[in-house]
This record gives sequence, C-alpha cells and structure tokens, in this order.
Amino acid sequence: MPNSSTPTPTPAAGNGLMHRRLFLKAGAGLVGGSALLTAQPATASRDAWMKAPGSPMSRYGAPSPHEAAVERINYGVSRPGTTGSGASRTPLEHLNGVITPSGLHFERHHSGVPDIDPDQYTLLIHGRVKRPLKFSLDSLARYPMVTRTQFLECSGNSRALLSPTAVPQGCGEIHGLISASEWTGVPLSILLDEAGVSREARWLVAEGGDAAMMTRSVPLTKAFDDALIALYQNGERLRPENGYPARLFLPGYEGNMSVKWLRSIAITAQPAMSRDETSKYTDLQPDGTARMFTFDMAVKSVITSPSPGLVMHQPGVYQISGLAWSGSGKITRVEISADGGKSWAEAAIDEPVLTKCLTRFRSAWRWDGAPTTLMSRAVDETGEVQPTRAAYFENNGPSTNYHCNIIQAWRVATDGGVTNVYA
Amino acid sequence: MPNSSTPTPTPAAGNGLMHRRLFLKAGAGLVGGSALLTAQPATASRDAWMKAPGSPMSRYGAPSPHEAAVERINYGVSRPGTTGSGASRTPLEHLNGVITPSGLHFERHHSGVPDIDPDQYTLLIHGRVKRPLKFSLDSLARYPMVTRTQFLECSGNSRALLSPTAVPQGCGEIHGLISASEWTGVPLSILLDEAGVSREARWLVAEGGDAAMMTRSVPLTKAFDDALIALYQNGERLRPENGYPARLFLPGYEGNMSVKWLRSIAITAQPAMSRDETSKYTDLQPDGTARMFTFDMAVKSVITSPSPGLVMHQPGVYQISGLAWSGSGKITRVEISADGGKSWAEAAIDEPVLTKCLTRFRSAWRWDGAPTTLMSRAVDETGEVQPTRAAYFENNGPSTNYHCNIIQAWRVATDGGVTNVYA
Repeated sequence: MPNSSTPTPTPAAGNGLMHRRLFLKAGAGLVGGSALLTAQPATASRDAWMKAPGSPMSRYGAPSPHEAAVERINYGVSRPGTTGSGASRTPLEHLNGVITPSGLHFERHHSGVPDIDPDQYTLLIHGRVKRPLKFSLDSLARYPMVTRTQFLECSGNSRALLSPTAVPQGCGEIHGLISASEWTGVPLSILLDEAGVSREARWLVAEGGDAAMMTRSVPLTKAFDDALIALYQNGERLRPENGYPARLFLPGYEGNMSVKWLRSIAITAQPAMSRDETSKYTDLQPDGTARMFTFDMAVKSVITSPSPGLVMHQPGVYQISGLAWSGSGKITRVEISADGGKSWAEAAIDEPVLTKCLTRFRSAWRWDGAPTTLMSRAVDETGEVQPTRAAYFENNGPSTNYHCNIIQAWRVATDGGVTNVYA
Repeated sequence: MPNSSTPTPTPAAGNGLMHRRLFLKAGAGLVGGSALLTAQPATASRDAWMKAPGSPMSRYGAPSPHEAAVERINYGVSRPGTTGSGASRTPLEHLNGVITPSGLHFERHHSGVPDIDPDQYTLLIHGRVKRPLKFSLDSLARYPMVTRTQFLECSGNSRALLSPTAVPQGCGEIHGLISASEWTGVPLSILLDEAGVSREARWLVAEGGDAAMMTRSVPLTKAFDDALIALYQNGERLRPENGYPARLFLPGYEGNMSVKWLRSIAITAQPAMSRDETSKYTDLQPDGTARMFTFDMAVKSVITSPSPGLVMHQPGVYQISGLAWSGSGKITRVEISADGGKSWAEAAIDEPVLTKCLTRFRSAWRWDGAPTTLMSRAVDETGEVQPTRAAYFENNGPSTNYHCNIIQAWRVATDGGVTNVYA
C-alpha cells in the first residue's frame, strides 16, 4: 500500500498556485475539506431514503430533481417579434468533464426548431457534380460512418467581453455558446466522391430545412478534409435543436456553418454570398473593409470553477478547473494565474487531448482569503496564444463583433464571491 | 480536388466482406444507396416544416418525438413482490458511436432508486485508517478530479446465450446490460491517502445508500489503481439511477461492485463475504467449488447492426457495425465473419481506442441476398480472444451464470431479417 506521508506543497506560481503533479498524486493533508472524526463511527444508522424501496426502472432517464437549477441560460428569450430566434447557453459552471449533456447543448436558432418527419427527410447533393444524388435517412445509414468528440462554438460566443465595461455576468452567460458532443456520421467526402464533383468546383452551399433556411458557403477543401453529415449525437440520434435528423458538422469552424436540418448541398464555383454570411458573421475592420469567411474558431480558455455563483466559503485549498479549445487543432498548454497575470503556472490537462475538442484543465490553489484575480491562458498546437484584452483590440479593431477570445479574468473577493472583471 | 474514379472492391474474407481501408476511403459506386437523379433538380420547394417558425429554445432538451421507440428495454419489469428490483437494458441496436446517452444507460437495482438529498449526503471513510473522515458533496468538490470514458457492464450481461437453445431476442435484450459514459470524479487513492490506511489493510467494503444496502468487497490494490468516487456522468451530475449524488466506479470490474449511492467505505483486512458477493455474483464450478471475486469483465464484442429488428430490404453493400470491450484494457483487434466463422476479416476501429471502454468497429459487406451467419470476435491487449460457445463451456462448466462472453451469431435470412442463432 502507498504510504500516507504528508508532502510539502511546492508553489508553482504566485499567490498559492501549486505544481500540477503534486495535486494529482497526493491528497494527504493537502485539501483538508473533509471532517476528521474523533472516533471510529458506530455502524451508521440508515438514512431516511434507505427505509423503503426506491423508484422503479424508467423508460428514458432524467436528471435528479435536486439538479433542476442546472438548465440552459436564457432559454425563454426570443428576439422581439419572432418565435424561436435567439440563443440559449450551456451552464458551463455546473458541468465537469468534456462532454456537454445533449439536453444542455447551447442553442442558436434563426427561426426556431422545425419538426422534421424522418420518413420524409431527404438530402440532395447537386450543382457542379457528375451525378446529382438524393439520400433518404435509410440510405445514409448504409455508408461508412466515423465517430469524433469535438466542440461546436457560436462565432458570437464571449462577445460580452467586448463591452466597454465588465458586465456582471457568469461563466455560462458569457461563454456558454460552446458545447462538446460525440458526433457520429458519414464523412462528406464519401458522398461527394459518389456524386463526382466537377473540375471547376471550389465551394459548396449548404441549406438548412428551417423556416429561416440558413445558407452558408463552405470551401470544398473543408468538405474533403473532416466534414461530416452527422446523424448521431452522444450515442443517439441528433436532438431536434441540433439538427434532427441530419446536420452538417464542420469541426473547428464557426458554429452556424455546421448547418442544421441539412436539406441540400449545392456544389459551386463561387460562394453564395448569402444573407447569413454577409449581413451577419462578418466583421468590420479598422480600415473600413469587411472581414468575411472567418472560419476557424480561435484558441481560448475559461475557468469554470471558481466562477460567479460558486462561492468559496473559507480560505484553503481549492481545485481550479476549466475548459480550453482551439478550432485549429489540439490544445498543448494551459496556464493559470492567481495574481492577476503577474505569474503563471501550467495546469494539468485531462487525457486524451482531442483535436478541435474541449480540453479540461485543473490546478490546485491555496486561497489565503485575500482578494485577487484568477486568469487562464491557452496555447494550441499551431503556437497560437490566447490574447490579453489590449492585444485583442489591437489586432481586431474596435468594431469587431465575432470570434472574441480575450483572456477571462475572475475577481475573487474576501467573502469568496467571484465576479467578471477586466484586468 | 480528389478524383471520383470508382475503385474495384477487394474482398477481405468470404461471402462479400471488404477490406476495412477500402470502405473508409472510397464511396464512389460502392454503396449506391442513394437515388441517382436524371436531371439537375430545380430549386427545391419548401418542405411543410419550413413554412412557419419552429419551436422556441428549451430549458433542458429531449430526443425527437419521432425517436420515442428508442427506450430502455424491459424498464417496466420488476421482480415479483418487489418495487424496483431488476434491470432495464440499453437498446444497443438503435445507438451509434461509443457514449451511451445517460437516459438510456442500463439499470440494475436491488431495491429501486433512492431519492437522496444532496445537502444531507455524506461519505464516510472508516475502519483500518489513521484518520476516519466524513465528506460532504461540497468538500469532495475541492479535491482533484479526473475524467475518463469507460464502460460499465453487469456481470450477468449476455446470459441469454447460456440458454440450451437460442432465444428469439435482439441485441439490446441479450447484451444491453452494458453502457459507456464519461465519468468524472475524485481518485479514491487521494481520499485514502488523506485517511491513511493501516499497514494490515487489504480490502475495502463499499456500502450503498439504497434500501438493499448493496455491499461489496474490493481489493485495496484496485482502490489505489484506478477507482473513482464518480460525481459527474457525461458532463452533468450523476443521474439518480446511476448513483446520484456519488458512486464508486471501478473500471473494468463487474458492474455491481461500482456501488451506487455510496455512503461508506470501511477499510478492512478481509473481505466482508456479504450477501451480494456470496448468494449472488459467484459461479459454481465443475468440481463443485464456488468461484468468487471474479472482478474483470471478459473480452467481448457484438454486431449491433445488422441485428434483429433491423431488416436489410435488398441485396447490396451494408455497413456492419458493433461494439467491442474488455475489462482488462484496450481492444487491439476485431474480426468479422460473414460465412458463419469459416473466414474472418479485420474490421476498422474508431479512434481513439480507450482502456476499459467500448470500442466501435465497422466493416463493409456486400450482401448477395443469400442466407448466411454474421459473427464478430474481439482480441484485447492482454492477448485474450473471445471464445466460441464450445470453448466457453469447456472452460467454465455447465453451471456458470456470470461473465458470459460467447461469440454472438446473427442469422440473416433471404428476406433480410436477422435472428439470434448458435453457430
């Protein structure tokens, strides 16, 4: 048996951050969050819930009623004059691990969730192809499939950090337009091979089967790289709000390009310049030009715990935990600061690190009870580093509206409360 | 752009099995499940569901109503004279990928699902320790956590294959006491280090907070290896039927040892010889002795598609897909036979292959319309190979009741229907 000697915590950065290896290997005396009993307990008496048989088996399970407060954020809010146009967010501060429960995956709809009859559903591949094809759901199921766990992020995520002053919002409110799922589907390249794209083809135009008919142009290089026609999410058929019965899934690209309720793919020589890629999802640049077709989501991270709403009741050792991701590949490093950015320590990262997926990081922090500021900073395999607020605006100009990846700062007060600040 | 030349399918084994690489890289002309259009379609007319705004955002999402038939199997069945004692099964034939949706995770309860108040919940670690400890949920959350995607399997899974004649059941009915989840929790070794186990300690006795007070003995070596106190399942708090708010999770071990609704861990020198490890979960051997403490689940695989209920409507190319797993580590190889075991072809395996996790395999098969028998056979990193029916009984004797890992055979009839057979 391992011995139980108490290690001396080694600091890894200022203000109580410990080395990541220490936290993962040794607990003796380190956390002390438990209550030490003065004597061996007598045989524990039965709790109230042990005195009668419990509930029977169920058709399809649901979360505990005690977790009813863990719900999508702003799910009841639709744009004025519309039905189902807007967004709901994932409550990141209440979750752990990497997968987002399908029931809490963020939503972004432009005209609500259509009710599509799977027996009537078809997917059309047409335009500059040798053989225009029409697929039913049954026929799609006969093709090779692959499974990949990857994130989906709305390009407007974290936009609250662009506000001139720090808004009093929490982690999910600010950053909850990101979720990760296990997606299973047919590689689009296989269907395009069967259709036979013409020599002059360079783009595809994907059209959604909702009332807003979301339409986005995608380079064919992406289609032949890692694009999927996704049919399953976290093991079961796609949820309605994620495109049931079939969606496009473009790993690492801004979310709305992964067109939901996908009904047709037109192969073209030029992009469509659709409403959804000109009036929206385009950024005004400092020189007055518009930056369009900004596909890859940038390298980013956020500390989910502690964060607003999760109060630390007393000084002591806490686990700092959060999520990091990049649309360009794998996360290679996450650093944490407990002194407002003066010093940084490398966090532990949960394995396996997957490409274009959320990556969970963790670190140990001995909070001395004094007010301070926590930050995290991610680096991806292309060498991109998450920018400070000043660096972000310098690169993107003041009118930017999408792809915000500014370092998040959380202020910890003496009472253990946490708030969004600019630092 | 890749060209669209049609490859000639190369057989990899008898009766139409194709090489795994071919299926993953080329689709042109190979499947032909789509409808070829004779002309470029006019701009597609709007489907009925596109003519009005859809449903608004929701608090917590649910599957499509069109998928209502995808439910746990036998969820309404309890043992006579009891409430909530029995099992419900995962409908494996309707799922894809690796993760099991939490709502469809199999259930095995000995006296139903208790309703535990998380604010009153405590976990006791006592017995042969230097410092008996009591943890609240809040205090557990301050310890380091890890995230792992791994399977959980009831030791009675696949028992239907022990029947003298093949039962007319489907994939989930026979094999659905297995599920995979992303589990997040505190390594038990850290809590045991904090408690300080005594020199003579060799076992722990885990006790559940249900009315049946499930009690199992676990070697301390396992506790210090990869045991977790699991708090999160697929990103959110454990579901009630999976042990809310905390369970023991012992990767690769028979499911009931991962005690749900965990209330206490007693550190001991000897196993408890509890009711749950003597009257059950013990196998009578050919020589009349009892085989107890059979921890690791064996190497196993099953083809989930095609399988009973999933009819192939016409001859042609189909994707054969299924799941493989081993309680001893990673799956290294899965082979498929389309001629009743006479010849075998290696299947493609979805990456990443994780230890003690479900592994999804896929292969392409050109069905000529003649009746035949499909089988799969898994090999794990320890070299263990899934046995034939004859080999299984030779090794385990006729009275065995647990840990069945016999190769599953599915008979395909000329009408495309699939049935369970012994072959």
